[in-house]
Amino acid sequence: MNFHIMTLFPDMVMNGLSTSIIGRAVNQGYLSIEAINIRDYAFNKHQSVDDYPYGGGAGMLMQAEPVYQAYEHIASKLSKKPRVVYLSPQGKTFSQKMAEEFAKEEDLVLLCGHYEGIDERVLEEIVTDYVSIGDYVLTGGELPAMVMIDAISRLIPGVLHNDVSAEFETFQDYLLEYPQYSRPEEWHGKKVPSVLLSGHHANIDKWRREQSIVRTRKARPDLLKKCIEQGLLSKKELQFLKELEENSTKNT
Amino acid sequence: MNFHIMTLFPDMVMNGLSTSIIGRAVNQGYLSIEAINIRDYAFNKHQSVDDYPYGGGAGMLMQAEPVYQAYEHIASKLSKKPRVVYLSPQGKTFSQKMAEEFAKEEDLVLLCGHYEGIDERVLEEIVTDYVSIGDYVLTGGELPAMVMIDAISRLIPGVLHNDVSAEFETFQDYLLEYPQYSRPEEWHGKKVPSVLLSGHHANIDKWRREQSIVRTRKARPDLLKKCIEQGLLSKKELQFLKELEENSTKNT
Repeated sequence: MNFHIMTLFPDMVMNGLSTSIIGRAVNQGYLSIEAINIRDYAFNKHQSVDDYPYGGGAGMLMQAEPVYQAYEHIASKLSKKPRVVYLSPQGKTFSQKMAEEFAKEEDLVLLCGHYEGIDERVLEEIVTDYVSIGDYVLTGGELPAMVMIDAISRLIPGVLHNDVSAEFETFQDYLLEYPQYSRPEEWHGKKVPSVLLSGHHANIDKWRREQSIVRTRKARPDLLKKCIEQGLLSKKELQFLKELEENSTKNT
Repeated sequence: MNFHIMTLFPDMVMNGLSTSIIGRAVNQGYLSIEAINIRDYAFNKHQSVDDYPYGGGAGMLMQAEPVYQAYEHIASKLSKKPRVVYLSPQGKTFSQKMAEEFAKEEDLVLLCGHYEGIDERVLEEIVTDYVSIGDYVLTGGELPAMVMIDAISRLIPGVLHNDVSAEFETFQDYLLEYPQYSRPEEWHGKKVPSVLLSGHHANIDKWRREQSIVRTRKARPDLLKKCIEQGLLSKKELQFLKELEENSTKNT
């Protein structure tokens, strides 16, 4: 899969995506990531890409033409019109499901805004998807683009080795991860739960699953609700949850 | 405000936060950002910081002791125990409101996990806040830490100049931003809406506000609902919304 990032800060995105698993996947040829500097497509000698908004208001706006030219440069090299994501608080909230959908694309263009945003007309002309990574305001679209690329890349066959693949689970069955423990057996007076040392795999699985239910109930009741609605808990697990709720009522 | 990032990839976070507004705020002394390499606190000659999880399962876990030692190194320099955020899908979902709350801290420690996570016992001992930036799975906690730092930094007095402060609005009144236009007046046959050229400020404000309502209704009905519930729309705006809904019913 090929990511094309349209940005005013190409170094920032390239540095941020060169380490760890994503960097390795690029080196091994599973992915390619290029950053296109929108400023290279400025049409005046000062290389400025922004101007005042019509109608007044604070701040500057990225102008239509440099963005369009940068896009044309990318599109001209591709055999079909790519999906173009504009990272913006105006967008649909990014989710694991959306990541899975984008992972099917051969090429994906990510457009990072800065200043007060981008002239509406070029957005209308080139953007296919408006995406927000969450309900908070950021300096620009670069970090959101990097977040999307990280989440999508993990889903491309070959990128993840077995050593991390289990992490996939979290948002697939709507349960949060159970607590994990590594050596030593005792640390600061705290012991590893004995069931994990028992070697009894069925008991370990049961304990982990129940811990996931306990955590999800506490931290993300909205996810647990979805999990139940979709019938992802067994009869015994529903019984466990019922007892959990009865106990918590007693204690309050 | 001082950010202390505990990570296995210090270069990635420092590079990603050195550009643009955040980099300028660091240079001007409004913020400080340091990345502490957890690997420097490994206690064996191979500098390894991970081991197998008890009870089996795919992947490796970050061990308790190096994380604890790295934390102690930070805490020993501070006059009071800092808040420590662990970036994890298990956390509470990050929001603009949470950013405002964190912006009041003098020091904030951000702990970035990798591999399958971190030994539960050290989390119990040092972490005060579990935060997730959204419902998607990422390679590690570094990008989420950068996202949090970006969102929080913008709220610290002096960091933002007037040129970008209007962006604040988006999540404060639950309405998305209106479309914006810059020069030229006509681009690819598309004209700037004439109201924006009129110089009539009251009409411009009214148009922008209505466009915000149209957009929020379409892209984020959940936000519009909150906006109405909190009484943030005027009588005229509620009337406008009513007409909008009647028209859309007719057209379907």
